[in-house]
This record gives sequence, structure tokens and C-alpha cells, in this order.
Amino acid sequence: MSPTEIPFVQSEMHPTRWGAPSSAAPLPEAARGLVELAFGLDEQPTRTGALPRPGLAADLVASLRAVVGARHVLDDDETRRLRTRGKSTPDLLRARAGDLSDAPDVVVRPGDHEEVAAVLAWAVEHHVAVVPFGGGTSVAGGLVARREGFAGLVSLDLVRMKRLLDVDPVSMTAVLEPGLRGPEAEALLAAKGLTLGHYPQSFEYATIGGFAATRSSGQSSAGYGRFDALVVGLRVATPRGEIALGSAPANAAGPDLRQLFLGSEGAFGVITAVTVRVRRRPARTTYEGWRWPSFDAGAEAMRTLAQAGLLPTVLRLSDEDETAINLAHPDEVGGAAGREAGAEAGGAPPGGCLMIVGHEGEPDVVAARRAAVTGVLEGLGGTALGEGPGAAWVRGRFGAPYLRDSMLDVGVLVETLETATFWSNRAALYAAVKEALTTSLGDGAIVLCHVSHVYETGCSLYFTVATRAGTDPLPRWLAAKAAASDAMMAAGATITHHHAVGTDHRPWLTREIGELGASVLRAVKTDLDPTGILNPGVLVP
Amino acid sequence: MSPTEIPFVQSEMHPTRWGAPSSAAPLPEAARGLVELAFGLDEQPTRTGALPRPGLAADLVASLRAVVGARHVLDDDETRRLRTRGKSTPDLLRARAGDLSDAPDVVVRPGDHEEVAAVLAWAVEHHVAVVPFGGGTSVAGGLVARREGFAGLVSLDLVRMKRLLDVDPVSMTAVLEPGLRGPEAEALLAAKGLTLGHYPQSFEYATIGGFAATRSSGQSSAGYGRFDALVVGLRVATPRGEIALGSAPANAAGPDLRQLFLGSEGAFGVITAVTVRVRRRPARTTYEGWRWPSFDAGAEAMRTLAQAGLLPTVLRLSDEDETAINLAHPDEVGGAAGREAGAEAGGAPPGGCLMIVGHEGEPDVVAARRAAVTGVLEGLGGTALGEGPGAAWVRGRFGAPYLRDSMLDVGVLVETLETATFWSNRAALYAAVKEALTTSLGDGAIVLCHVSHVYETGCSLYFTVATRAGTDPLPRWLAAKAAASDAMMAAGATITHHHAVGTDHRPWLTREIGELGASVLRAVKTDLDPTGILNPGVLVP
Repeated sequence: MSPTEIPFVQSEMHPTRWGAPSSAAPLPEAARGLVELAFGLDEQPTRTGALPRPGLAADLVASLRAVVGARHVLDDDETRRLRTRGKSTPDLLRARAGDLSDAPDVVVRPGDHEEVAAVLAWAVEHHVAVVPFGGGTSVAGGLVARREGFAGLVSLDLVRMKRLLDVDPVSMTAVLEPGLRGPEAEALLAAKGLTLGHYPQSFEYATIGGFAATRSSGQSSAGYGRFDALVVGLRVATPRGEIALGSAPANAAGPDLRQLFLGSEGAFGVITAVTVRVRRRPARTTYEGWRWPSFDAGAEAMRTLAQAGLLPTVLRLSDEDETAINLAHPDEVGGAAGREAGAEAGGAPPGGCLMIVGHEGEPDVVAARRAAVTGVLEGLGGTALGEGPGAAWVRGRFGAPYLRDSMLDVGVLVETLETATFWSNRAALYAAVKEALTTSLGDGAIVLCHVSHVYETGCSLYFTVATRAGTDPLPRWLAAKAAASDAMMAAGATITHHHAVGTDHRPWLTREIGELGASVLRAVKTDLDPTGILNPGVLVP
Repeated sequence: MSPTEIPFVQSEMHPTRWGAPSSAAPLPEAARGLVELAFGLDEQPTRTGALPRPGLAADLVASLRAVVGARHVLDDDETRRLRTRGKSTPDLLRARAGDLSDAPDVVVRPGDHEEVAAVLAWAVEHHVAVVPFGGGTSVAGGLVARREGFAGLVSLDLVRMKRLLDVDPVSMTAVLEPGLRGPEAEALLAAKGLTLGHYPQSFEYATIGGFAATRSSGQSSAGYGRFDALVVGLRVATPRGEIALGSAPANAAGPDLRQLFLGSEGAFGVITAVTVRVRRRPARTTYEGWRWPSFDAGAEAMRTLAQAGLLPTVLRLSDEDETAINLAHPDEVGGAAGREAGAEAGGAPPGGCLMIVGHEGEPDVVAARRAAVTGVLEGLGGTALGEGPGAAWVRGRFGAPYLRDSMLDVGVLVETLETATFWSNRAALYAAVKEALTTSLGDGAIVLCHVSHVYETGCSLYFTVATRAGTDPLPRWLAAKAAASDAMMAAGATITHHHAVGTDHRPWLTREIGELGASVLRAVKTDLDPTGILNPGVLVP
């Protein structure tokens, strides 16, 4: 199934798991034995917690109803539960423990830019904290705002803002509302023969507004560009009024202010429309596997492609351990890649590193680029594994978060973290983060890594960690996460390549951008949101 | 001569003309007759004006000497004259009229980041305005700061900061100091087999710091990327301290603060180092001409290439009038392009529009891309004119500003302005700006245009205007410029694609970015430069 054929996903996510309630599933039987061998099985029940009483005074709720209409202001338990936090493993652990202390008092659903602006005006008047909510897929604590000092906390749910506002087929741009989930946006564009081409792992649930607010990067960003490169224009509602940016494909009219709102995580304003560059839907897609004798050899091949101007649409590389785990777990989501890789490699012993190479576009362009890439990879010692591993990767490309829940069910904590650096620092960063995680988590932890995004000057490193949850997994994980984050800073890398800052990475942000960078963020925040109602405690140090 | 073979340019520019004093030349004899026919000849003498007395108190000059050493603080007439304003036609007209009222009181030449920081601390302490000076090539009034309210005005000349600080051949990045002129930076990189690939028309004199501070775009930016896309990291000295940005090739660690300093035009800080992406020097370069029956047809071909992912390294298209002028002026700098185009088109009648298509890179990559581009252009009705017009364009690519001086000598005012928009708005913007200029300037004015930069979603339009200077050219030109700028705003385009804001475009900036965008710029300015000493009156509305 090509990404653009993914059906509309209308369902809410499960309150304590990733994905629709219907997708909740136990660990596959075939994987269960291996997980037991590695970690032991320790079934973990999920507790149903009680919601805190809504803290927003009744007269304020009534005045909010007057702003957007009574049916778009919800304070029932079910809705509040569904708007509590995001989907990091700490978020899930708290939800499973029945901790709903971060629930909003009320959920408000404005229908357009003007209603968003009116809600913000209401929130300023009554000093109510506002948390913009798109797909609810944050894995960085972006939906856990501080409520102290406010008259209440409102989840500003963009779920009603799902229109394709405009398409310019000459300029190849489209104007999308922020509440459109990935598959919904793709379906609307597909009806016009177009695609956005943005497929982060959260694609099924994450929204256009969220992509912009977090400067998202997708699995096909090597070909289509990161989301910040796709954005041509933005419309933003702030407590001080509207700002609309994007007067030309490029300009020199001072600083590029769009880049202040891309990555602003709801702290500077609410993005109410995004003008994006679109492409014609690819007539041909091909994804294939390559095997490398080592992570270093594969990464060097990636560097060669990037610096030769030959980046495929999709390019990723698993390290030795991640490749081996995929081989060992035949029923794991996405795990078939390794098995088929082994089979197609002609019975060669397992080992080495699996690379996925994908091309999308017009058939002749795909053929030409594939030939050029194949020539380079063969010349560097890669072994072509055919389309089997590629098809397996496509099948499982959005699957890992579901598996995480199944692992949590049996007492295995799984979490991911990611960073990026320049090529000359890649090996050192890899070693430092891996060392920090394994030292912090101790024996029995498994640390896997893949290169998820590739640039001319460097790449990202995406780590997956699995460890026995034990009796008190949260502080143990937070200590490991802190150790990994410290290691990233010590190595001169970034605290996040595509997961954004939220509350989880905020303690490290000043080390990355400096005291003066933090000061600039505070100055912009103060200018646009003088009373600090927007996502308080998120992003801005 | 390939751009990277251009010799080091060590000379200062002429105080009242573009380029080195030795390059000053009368209008070529062959062009003189044509210019006389079109405009009449009205030889204009250049007056030597008197410099205003330095306004900075002697004790302040003495204290500045203590900061960087006496030999790096200059207040002689010659130096002050050379640091007065930039090189817009209004700047040149004022200089030719002997108006030196914008001369700095003193020119200070710090040698490194720490000395820049020390000069800024001195300027804050004594409330002295500071104008950062790179190549002095601004054509937007970027070097004409407001001095009212300050104890004096200092030109902070970056001429001593010309080092290649670091090269990372694995990550393909280099760290350059801001005072390096284009050819100097290329020469240092060429010694290591590398190139930056950034060639604005001001290339011979403009500096790395200026490229960054103005978000410059070059003639080869379709292939190498605009300067903002080349910048990986920045080090900036501000009145509140240092900021260093660029921890990874890409990240999601909040807003991209680099994009606040790219385009900051010296108003937020002084850029003291720029980390850029570099490429291997091209082994093969080829530039050729194509003829199109109309500007519209040629522009549509550009759009097709851009949206098919087939942008060459260089791509530009002259409108019918610009093409005809080039044909008619055989000795004009760059004008040979048209003549050779006519000849190589097999004696076809003149007319139509000339496109220049250039490819740079590895021979096989160039060959493949050239073949693909040729196929598209032939399919769309273009006529290949061979390498003659391309060679002529290369010879003249930096030449237009020299010709402008020769035209001013005989009483013809020549100036350029530029904008950009989306493809669907291109024709309307072209018509509106042309109409505004011709209406404002009246009979006898010539307005030429070319598409200078091409993107997937749109393009830039670069206008050249020639008109009889007459007795009082400045107000007449400023009225025409205002009319053109109003037309750009009315058409929803940008006030500048690559010339930057300076003082000349500042009155229009708020219309482009909105009141709230202007407010954000002021907030950032206030945070970084609380007493407003940096380039006062430039950029920030």
C-alpha cells in the first residue's frame, strides 16, 4: 500500500495507547517468546484513573460557550481524557498508572481562524492557559503545559479545521487548515493528483498544524524536503492579533519570520493555515534493501550519495543491533525486512546493516536516479537485496508505536530519542549516546540505532531503547534520557532532530542555542503573548 | 574565465563609481551612438565634495584607539570617503554631486570576534552608532544609518577579518570570516578543491558577512542554493554578548534562530563567522543560450523545469526588450550574448527572448542533466543557440554596474530593482511594475526585465531602467521607485527578492510582514541591541 492510499483515519486515538482503540493488540505470539527470553514477561494492567475536577469557573465556561457555541465547548470526562498529554512513553506510563493530573479543564473546538482568535482574546481576558491540540502525537511533552497561576487550562482542539482552502496548480501550492491529519491532507490532495509527501512515523494521526509547529521531518524528507522546506506561507493567530507570512517563494525582505513560527510549538501563536509546496503524485515508487558490512560503511555510502547530489526519496540505515533484532523478531512490525533481507542475500549469514533506499516520481526519473544510486552503492561495496526488504519496510513504516504498547503490556519499556550532527561527528555521537544509555540503564537494556535522515553535511541518529520496566520505570527512564541528552550536548549535537522541544527537551535548549538565543525566544514570546497564556512551560526556556 | 578563476580583488572601490578606480572607463565608442540616439548625451561632471567635520569627540576617538589599537582607527578623509554609503544609483548620484553628509566620523577595523565585541561594548558605553561595513555594495541604502541622537557614527569595517577559519572535508563545511570578498573566499576554498558557488552580480566586492546579513542570492543559486541555504552556522557579536548557532545540519529544537540573523542587515549584531556548506569545484561547466518566441513561453519553460526537478545551475530569461537591447548594443557589457544568439540562430530575425542555461558539476552529471533539460526545452518549443550566448553571458556576468557609471557619465540614469512572486502571479506582477515605472518616468524611459531566479513555486523579476537623468534625477527616480514598490505590494509580491531592505525598502516592509511582523523585529532588536546603536534606521520598521 502506497502512503497516499492510506484510508482516512477518523478515529480518536486510544487514551492510553497509540492508534485507534480497535488497533490495540497483544504482543504477537511469535515475538512473545523472544521478548520473554530477553526481558521476561511481567503483565502490566492499565489502571483507570479519576479525572481532576474541572478547575475553570462555571461563568468562564459559559462565556467561552458564547464565543464558539455551546456544542464546541466540551468538558465531559471522555473528551478531557482524550486531550490529556501526548504519546511519549512517559506520557503512556502516567496514563497507564491512572494519572490524569494534566487533563484540561475544558476542550474548545474553534471552526476557523476568527474563532481561534476569539478564543485567544477570551483566554487573555480571563488569564486562562491555552494548549493547542492537533493530532496529540507529541513525544516530547508538548501537551503538558504549566497551569499554575492561571484561572484554568483549555485544550484548543483544531479538529474542526480540516479544509483544503485553496490549490494553485500553476504555482503548485496548496493552503491547508491545521487540523488535517496526514492521511486526510493526502486524500484531499490526491483527488487533485497532488501529494505533500510528508510521512513521519506519526503520519496517521499527526496534523498539518503540528507538522509546522514542530518543524517535523518525514521518512521521505530526503526527496520531498523537511516540512519547514515545504512551507511557503503561514497564517497565525496570536494574542496580539494575526500575522500572515509568505509573500514570495523566497525573498530578502529581512529575517525569515516564518522560521520563527515553524518550531514555535504553540507558544507564539496558533497556526490557522499553512501554504505548502505540493508535487504531482508519484507514478512510480520503489523501495529496496541494501546490505552493508558495518554501520560505518553504510553511513559512508549515505554521505557519498548526499554529497554527490544523489539522495533517494527515502534513505535509512539500521545499525548492526537493529538489523539483528529485525532478523530475530519475524513477527515484529517491520521486522520482516531483516528476514527477507537474509533470504534474498542468498543464504549469507545474518549480520551487517540493512539500508532502505526508496525512489518516488515519474517512471523515467525514478529509473535514472535508481540506476545512478545503484552504481554508487555497488561501487562502495553494498549488496543489493531487492524489493523484499523495501516492501516490508513500507508495510511497517508507521507500526513501531503500536508495538511499543504491546511491549509495555508485558512490562518492557520501549522508547525512542533522536539527534543529529555533522558527518565528521557521527561516529563519536553514536558511541557517546549509546554509552550514556547503556551505562544509565544497566544490564539487560537493548539500544538500537538507525540513521533516519540524511543531508549533505550530516545526518540524524534515531535510537530505540528497550528495557525491563520493573516497578518504577519512569524515574529510571528519565535518568537515562537525561544522560543521553547530556551526551548529545557534550558532543555538540542537537537535542532533537525532529521530535521538537516540548517540556522534555526544554532543560537542554539553552545549552544548544545559548543564553542569548533563549533571551530572543523570550523576547518574541513576550511580544506576541504578553501574558504568557500560550502553552506555558513548553519550548521557551 | 570560470568564476573560480577570477583573481583576488584587493582594491578598494572607487568612491563615486562601482569597481576599482582602474576600471573606470567611458562609455564604449560603439554604444555611444546608440545611447545618443535613445537619450541624447549630456556629459555629467563629478564634483568633489567636502567631508563634514568628524563629529566624534577626541576623547572618544582616543578611547576607541585603546580598544583595537591606534592603527586600526582611521579618520582621514580618504578612508571616510570610501566608507560613505553603498552603490545604489541614488548613492552614486549623491556622491557625484559631492554630497558626503553621510560619511562616518571614524572607521574602525577590528581583527577578530573579540575585538568586534569590544567595539560594540565601547559603542554602547558612549552611545555611538555603528554601521557594519563589508564590501560596501549595498544597493538598498543599507549603509546610510541615522546618526541623530548619537554621540557619533562609526563604520565598523570588517576588512581585516579575512580568514578561512576551518574546513571539514568530511562534512563538506567551511568556516569563513565575514570580511572575505567573494573571489577571496573562492580562492581560499579552491586551494582545497572546494567552492561555495555563490555569485551575485556584486561577487567581485561583496563579502561573506554581507551575503549572510542580506540573505543574498546568486546567479548560480538554482544549482547551489541561495546563501541562506548554504549557511550551516553563524557566530554573531551583539551588544548583549555572543550568539553561536548551527548545532546540526537540521533540527527541530524550536524556531530556526539562524534565520533571524540571515537578513538582519547589521541591525541585530555583527556576524563574525559563517559556517557554510561547500561543494567540490565543478570539473565541467557549460552555459548555453536558448531562444523563446515570447517571455511567457520562456517563463513557462522555466516553470516546467523547476517543477520537474530539473533546475540547471544557472537559469535566466530576458524579456523581449532586454533581449533586443542586448542585440542592439554590441559592445555593451554582456551584450555580445544577443548578437551571437542572433548569428547562431541561423540568421533568424531578431526578436523573441534569450534564456541562459548553465550546468556545473561532475562531467557525467552535467551530461545527464543537460540532456534531460535539453529534451524538455526542445519539447516546449525552445530553440537551442549553442554555447556562444552562454560564453558572452559569463564574460559579462558581473559587468552591468560598470556600465551604469559610464551611462551616468553621459547623463543617463540606470538603476535596477527586483521582486518575486508565485508562478500564477508572474505575468500580472510583470505588467504592474512595468506600467508603474513607465507611467512614473514618462516618455523616453526604457524598462527591461529578466527572470533572475527560479523556484518550484515561482520566480523573481529583475528590472533595469534607463532614463535621461536631466537636471534633478534623484527625486524623479525616487518617485518611480516608490511607484514600482507600491505596485509590488498591490500585487502581493515581495519588496525585495535579493537586494535586502536597507533604508530604501523599509517604508514598504510593514506592508509585507504586517504590523505584528514589524513588532517582532522591533522586539528582537530591543532584546539584542537595547540602546539601538546598530545600524539605526536600517531594516527595522
